[in-house]
Amino acid sequence: MTADVDFGDDGLVPAVAQDTNSGEVLMMAYVSPAALERTRETGRAHYYSRSRDELWEKGATSGHTQAVREVRIDCDGDALLYLVEQAGGACHTGYHSCFYRTIDDETVGERVFDPDEAYGDGDGDGNG
Amino acid sequence: MTADVDFGDDGLVPAVAQDTNSGEVLMMAYVSPAALERTRETGRAHYYSRSRDELWEKGATSGHTQAVREVRIDCDGDALLYLVEQAGGACHTGYHSCFYRTIDDETVGERVFDPDEAYGDGDGDGNG
Repeated sequence: MTADVDFGDDGLVPAVAQDTNSGEVLMMAYVSPAALERTRETGRAHYYSRSRDELWEKGATSGHTQAVREVRIDCDGDALLYLVEQAGGACHTGYHSCFYRTIDDETVGERVFDPDEAYGDGDGDGNG
Repeated sequence: MTADVDFGDDGLVPAVAQDTNSGEVLMMAYVSPAALERTRETGRAHYYSRSRDELWEKGATSGHTQAVREVRIDCDGDALLYLVEQAGGACHTGYHSCFYRTIDDETVGERVFDPDEAYGDGDGDGNG
């Protein structure tokens, strides 16, 4: 049995990706029904880009894929949690997590790769 | 200096609350500019309820407040991370985390309180 997912008015549900080893929260993105299906079929994290209006696989270009160990859903079904093993870094800026800054704009995260080398498409959007 | 927050078209930004001790992801909710300001002023997590269209303080009724140790922002400024010390449980159902189920509807989280005792308002919405 699959839990009911509330995809909301726009057909998307927010998903949090968490590093299953370190516990670090890596990123937040949106998931469509097809993105969830692809994630479950392949075991690799897929999301839906609202700006580009398309399904994307995390790390398809950069190689910084997310192997999904478990998908969780919250109490009211309108948020997902991907527990992942992150290859390289989750953030297109080169940090392990997209949450590498405090609200006071102080950098606290760890940079783990050079984005100029990672993105062949050169648009730096981190989606590959 | 404060980082720029992108509150989007609806004036809200999604926020993830993470237990700063255990690393567990506790919940996802939305934050308005006033909710963020109140959170920073008081050190207790505030959110904005889309269904009730109002600012709320987590745990105001149940006592299950969140002491916010740090607020982080993601690379493109459209998601927040609250690092919190959670009193009691974050979920109105009595679980420590709202993400207590897998997508296959298997319960994996820990129940830490009885919701019937915690909520004097009896509506079980977990907002107190």
